[in-house]
Amino acid sequence: MNPRIPRTALQLRSLIRRSGELEISLVEVEVPDPAADEVLVRIEATPINPSDLGLLFGAADMDAAKVSGSAERPIVTAQVPEKSMRSMAGRVDQSMPVGNEGAGVVVRAGSSVAAQALLGKTVAMIGGAMYAQYRCIKAEQCLVLPEDATPSDGASCFVNPLTALGMVETMRREGHSALVHTAAASNLGQMLNRICLQDNVGLVNIVRKQAQCDLLTSQGAKYVCNTESPGFMAELTEALAATGATIAFDAIGGGRLPGQILTCMEAALSRNAQEYSRYGSTTHKQVYLYGMLDTSPTEIVRNFGFSWGMGGWLLFTFLGKIGPAAAQKLRERVAKELKTTFASSYSNEISLAGALQLAAIAVYGKRATGAKYLIKPHQ
Amino acid sequence: MNPRIPRTALQLRSLIRRSGELEISLVEVEVPDPAADEVLVRIEATPINPSDLGLLFGAADMDAAKVSGSAERPIVTAQVPEKSMRSMAGRVDQSMPVGNEGAGVVVRAGSSVAAQALLGKTVAMIGGAMYAQYRCIKAEQCLVLPEDATPSDGASCFVNPLTALGMVETMRREGHSALVHTAAASNLGQMLNRICLQDNVGLVNIVRKQAQCDLLTSQGAKYVCNTESPGFMAELTEALAATGATIAFDAIGGGRLPGQILTCMEAALSRNAQEYSRYGSTTHKQVYLYGMLDTSPTEIVRNFGFSWGMGGWLLFTFLGKIGPAAAQKLRERVAKELKTTFASSYSNEISLAGALQLAAIAVYGKRATGAKYLIKPHQ
Repeated sequence: MNPRIPRTALQLRSLIRRSGELEISLVEVEVPDPAADEVLVRIEATPINPSDLGLLFGAADMDAAKVSGSAERPIVTAQVPEKSMRSMAGRVDQSMPVGNEGAGVVVRAGSSVAAQALLGKTVAMIGGAMYAQYRCIKAEQCLVLPEDATPSDGASCFVNPLTALGMVETMRREGHSALVHTAAASNLGQMLNRICLQDNVGLVNIVRKQAQCDLLTSQGAKYVCNTESPGFMAELTEALAATGATIAFDAIGGGRLPGQILTCMEAALSRNAQEYSRYGSTTHKQVYLYGMLDTSPTEIVRNFGFSWGMGGWLLFTFLGKIGPAAAQKLRERVAKELKTTFASSYSNEISLAGALQLAAIAVYGKRATGAKYLIKPHQ
Repeated sequence: MNPRIPRTALQLRSLIRRSGELEISLVEVEVPDPAADEVLVRIEATPINPSDLGLLFGAADMDAAKVSGSAERPIVTAQVPEKSMRSMAGRVDQSMPVGNEGAGVVVRAGSSVAAQALLGKTVAMIGGAMYAQYRCIKAEQCLVLPEDATPSDGASCFVNPLTALGMVETMRREGHSALVHTAAASNLGQMLNRICLQDNVGLVNIVRKQAQCDLLTSQGAKYVCNTESPGFMAELTEALAATGATIAFDAIGGGRLPGQILTCMEAALSRNAQEYSRYGSTTHKQVYLYGMLDTSPTEIVRNFGFSWGMGGWLLFTFLGKIGPAAAQKLRERVAKELKTTFASSYSNEISLAGALQLAAIAVYGKRATGAKYLIKPHQ
């Protein structure tokens, strides 16, 4: 027994009551004893990804959030609009742990050989409930980090790296040869750019600020289109024609951009059309919405024929589809290139209590590129 | 040589000039001599399908259309708004023949055995340029109608029947067990209802008027939801839960309905959910937009998780995907059940010149259920 492991420790919880009230708080939970095939990990670093915010905030209006409680134990409350409560039905009155991924040190191990082998190792994990000081998890779910990697280096080694690799893999499996990415200056977007440069895959980056264009260009990106440019549609069409990209991954979800990408793909394709088809080009054009940076409705102006698709894309569904062997290959690449291709950077490090401050929520809740927070649960 | 066949005959043409002017007129074209493997068909009946209107009108504003010329040779003109000219680029300054399908009598045949065998037969055809008095076509593209069928009986025996059968076939091939259809009181919708009753497939019909509910119910439809009902969303959810439908075919395209169908599918699925998933149910929900009754933007409120898809659906793409043998099976079923399952009805019969009258355009151009026109080119 490690004497420094307490009997109880902090865990962040999100609760939406039937009344529509959201309450986010820190609760004292028992530190579990690992079963034979499990290990106990002292979590040292866990990122706030856009994909965590759905569970953390639900559909609550965070602009009107309030904080009460003490500095060590803040309680954030906010209200879910009544019209959004239907989509919250599945979680009402359940106190939910949060946090998709994290990294830390194995401080206690079950009796199995696999678990014992991890004792003292720095590992990365995915599986929820990572916004906590300790996490008990199956040994097989841990990814051992390279010797020289810290928990901060490995905290984001599942969601973003596997999503970026999954996009390129999906592109290949669905018969496309180049791809489009939006919100492309994000940590994920920078990774995707590095993967595409390395694998020689055409990538059209879409961003909304000149500084983001400059950042990606400085990292070797060949095609970067700025939605704020007056010539955006023409520039995007040009880049699509040059790369031949007919699949896009959109992090934003809301607004007109997903449809505009299809419009420009069609315009690029019809440049080479031999004769007019009233149904548009026969090349299938696909946009996957993998994020919800903008939760407003998606508006599609359908001027791109009938050979198109739009749909949700989810890392876990993708990993299930390709099977464990193919997924393991992707994970091994991530571990190998953790400090290069898959390096993440954070704008701020905060404690668990710090994550419940309105000033912090106002920043990381915006899901803005360049504002990525890392929680250090023992600070 | 049949002495009654003229040297030239009328053909309807649609032209969009670079200036954006649409001109629809009747032109005198030479009646061609069939090649060895071709036949010449005197077209007796050809329907105006919603799928014809895209080519006929382009993106022109038909509310402001004008007619000039004589009663026998009217010329319709209208203007394509400048913002829509990009999607017309492929057809600019080309005089296009129109009309997807039709039926008539083979009046002249090429030297091949297959062509000669058709002489005097009543046949149905698909392939464009049917808004004309004569059509030369490959013998193998003709479907011989049953002895007791008139050209009017067979005029609509491709687009609607194969589309309706294609929907059920797509449902099966993509792993769904029941389906949703919108604008469901149309000729196509009534066919689909008869197919589903016969094949014992669950069908949720969506209409927008009580009279359409009554019509479908009188034809044995079990689930009919009216978008004008104040309880529409709840009623649709109920019907989706009862049938288990997770795929929809939408004729409308614009507005909120395609997204609402996904929302209600998700609500029906989450009734049986064991535990909350922040990403929504894992059952794939699909909406295919196969029509353009409403050309306004599609607005999707994404409150149905990540397991969803939306996309275009096109009969010709579908037929290509299933291959000639499977397509032939579908065609044989249509011929066999032409006067029962696949019977069409028309609100009006008009001549070629009659199709170019503003009063007629105002009706059939609305793509409204129950207002289906049949052109009789020799009237």
